[in-house]
Amino acid sequence: MLNEYLENVREKNPLIHNITNYVTVNDCANILLASGAAPLMADENKEIEEIVAISQGLNINIGTLNSRTSEAMLLAGKRANELGIPVELDPVGVGASSFRYEFVQQLLKEVKFTTIKGNFSEIKLMAQGVGTTRGVDATETDIVTKNNFDSLLNLSREFSRQTGAIVIMSGATDIVSNSSQSAAITNGVEMMSKITGTGCMLSALVTGFIAANKEAIFDAAVSAVCLMGLAGEKAKEKVEKHSAGTSSFRTYLIDEIGLIEKLDEGAKYEIYK
Amino acid sequence: MLNEYLENVREKNPLIHNITNYVTVNDCANILLASGAAPLMADENKEIEEIVAISQGLNINIGTLNSRTSEAMLLAGKRANELGIPVELDPVGVGASSFRYEFVQQLLKEVKFTTIKGNFSEIKLMAQGVGTTRGVDATETDIVTKNNFDSLLNLSREFSRQTGAIVIMSGATDIVSNSSQSAAITNGVEMMSKITGTGCMLSALVTGFIAANKEAIFDAAVSAVCLMGLAGEKAKEKVEKHSAGTSSFRTYLIDEIGLIEKLDEGAKYEIYK
Amino acid sequence: MLNEYLENVREKNPLIHNITNYVTVNDCANILLASGAAPLMADENKEIEEIVAISQGLNINIGTLNSRTSEAMLLAGKRANELGIPVELDPVGVGASSFRYEFVQQLLKEVKFTTIKGNFSEIKLMAQGVGTTRGVDATETDIVTKNNFDSLLNLSREFSRQTGAIVIMSGATDIVSNSSQSAAITNGVEMMSKITGTGCMLSALVTGFIAANKEAIFDAAVSAVCLMGLAGEKAKEKVEKHSAGTSSFRTYLIDEIGLIEKLDEGAKYEIYK
Repeated sequence: MLNEYLENVREKNPLIHNITNYVTVNDCANILLASGAAPLMADENKEIEEIVAISQGLNINIGTLNSRTSEAMLLAGKRANELGIPVELDPVGVGASSFRYEFVQQLLKEVKFTTIKGNFSEIKLMAQGVGTTRGVDATETDIVTKNNFDSLLNLSREFSRQTGAIVIMSGATDIVSNSSQSAAITNGVEMMSKITGTGCMLSALVTGFIAANKEAIFDAAVSAVCLMGLAGEKAKEKVEKHSAGTSSFRTYLIDEIGLIEKLDEGAKYEIYK
Repeated sequence: MLNEYLENVREKNPLIHNITNYVTVNDCANILLASGAAPLMADENKEIEEIVAISQGLNINIGTLNSRTSEAMLLAGKRANELGIPVELDPVGVGASSFRYEFVQQLLKEVKFTTIKGNFSEIKLMAQGVGTTRGVDATETDIVTKNNFDSLLNLSREFSRQTGAIVIMSGATDIVSNSSQSAAITNGVEMMSKITGTGCMLSALVTGFIAANKEAIFDAAVSAVCLMGLAGEKAKEKVEKHSAGTSSFRTYLIDEIGLIEKLDEGAKYEIYK
Repeated sequence: MLNEYLENVREKNPLIHNITNYVTVNDCANILLASGAAPLMADENKEIEEIVAISQGLNINIGTLNSRTSEAMLLAGKRANELGIPVELDPVGVGASSFRYEFVQQLLKEVKFTTIKGNFSEIKLMAQGVGTTRGVDATETDIVTKNNFDSLLNLSREFSRQTGAIVIMSGATDIVSNSSQSAAITNGVEMMSKITGTGCMLSALVTGFIAANKEAIFDAAVSAVCLMGLAGEKAKEKVEKHSAGTSSFRTYLIDEIGLIEKLDEGAKYEIYK
């Protein structure tokens, strides 16, 4: 079933406009190409609405947000909404500064997102506002236990209800939720946190999948998350085979995105209604 | 014969100033180093003319153009002209927005380029102005058939006459033209379009070659195009040998730029007068 | 002994804030992760002081300096000083333009650096002001002979006395000095100069080491320099084994930063009092 959504990316070759950070931008471009989509990066206000108009998906990532690019993100997001183009948000480090937090609040008010991908801390902060810790809080993210699983499902669904977006909460177990159902995905390996950009790459990948599968956003998002995790598993096998390290892992990871043919065979997920 | 031009890059080690996009900038730096040249990236107006003055070649690439860097490009291009330093233009996505199109028009008026590298759509738009489609049009590029070959030669020569630049039209067959002669180069593999930056890397490489071979710009450009394509062929062989994917291909491609010793043996091109 | 400082990086997992160039930023992030530290990149004035406050180390690299980021560097550096957070400076190409030179002068006045890493020409220019050549002068750097070794030691110590920083002078032999003692490190291979970013990566790595070893800055810096050089040696062995090239070398280099367990066994350095 999931394979169909991957096939659609490869056949439709959607052009994805990314306004993203300068740290992992090259990886985002290459993972989009490996998946079958086509990347385009542009962030100048004077052209941003024209660029949106020739794209099939928009990926907004605030990793190295600044005053200039924040304007471009707002303009692009609104234009994508007008044109019915799917928009993904990756609120990297939303808790790390007031500047990021307030900008994300504004984005959520002015732009309707199709999907929003964040770790537990980021989603919690966006869903529940102040009360929560601000900071780059990666450890909390990885802890999905039997005890807190239900509350994670509820949080992601609550945020989906607030925003109308499919919410992708990344962690050791990834959760994809709309307002009433969730998928819990256990693909992936710990080494993915030892290279920069796996989160950003996932957001780019998700954008390609939702652009090529506009009628099945939830399933498309689940497919992208499974593909990313499965590629990580296969890349890890290669690292072990070659006694290699994390930089080789990065190379193998992107390789696998293009090599995987049978997503359904490797995907590990359960649906919760 | 072509090997001589490569040898000159390796011996003269020209310093190449790149004002380029933040997506593929690292690959451009590494391919320049692999070829024997030295990269330098700088885009601040306050220093741009000093940076040009210590360089042997200037590579202008508008991939992620913005208002700030466009000024730097104009200043740098004019200064390079004054100093007799070769200048290459890569008008990435010139048809994707009015901002890019108008800026390139201005660049072509105010700066004399030594070489201009674009795909078919980009060259056509620049040479013939409005009438043509604007957009990121990559598919048309790859189609060089017996039927349209003559018109491609003519288009590139026409644009060379307009600009005084050597024109490099990239595609499945790459064409290098001055006003009266052309080389058609068939090195290269399809996988080069499955990673980001092969176009940008080619432009960087071309700049290194023309900087080290100022008396033989046409031949130097042909050599750079052959080297890039040949490296792609050799990288593809390694990918197949290792059942690898596109990210490994990127690594092998840059590896090969430094490993190739006998460019003449692998170069596939014909000259048309 | 040196291994202890590496262990501290892996255990303490310090968050390193980098304000750096867009050419090698991805490599800096990945090498920090490989070493056991965590990278964070942010350069917007509006958030820069908050970002500094959640970090354990600050790495300032002027490789693609511009008017906007220069302000962020000053704000961040001053805030780090107030909070007692170690700060590293990489004055890339300080001699390439007046803009860079004057900005570095201002930085050195307004910010107290914990470590400063540059090649011979850069350190000489900063320590002795005008008299010296400005330009991207890499060749002079690599020449450490018996004849000039003493003068290099003296220069680095002189600059350490001027700034209060530990000075890391990179070259074929790397020298780490405080005001009264030096370490001369002979780890490393020539191929490190055939990829972009080894200097930037070293600065990032140093920042991780000094952040995790605040009570032993000199030894931590020596450890980072040894680790980088040793990783280069091991990466070179892999390149030779696989008849690979410079891009593979880059991958292996970052791999090795994470794979090396016994730094003391491979480290080659002597202490001069």
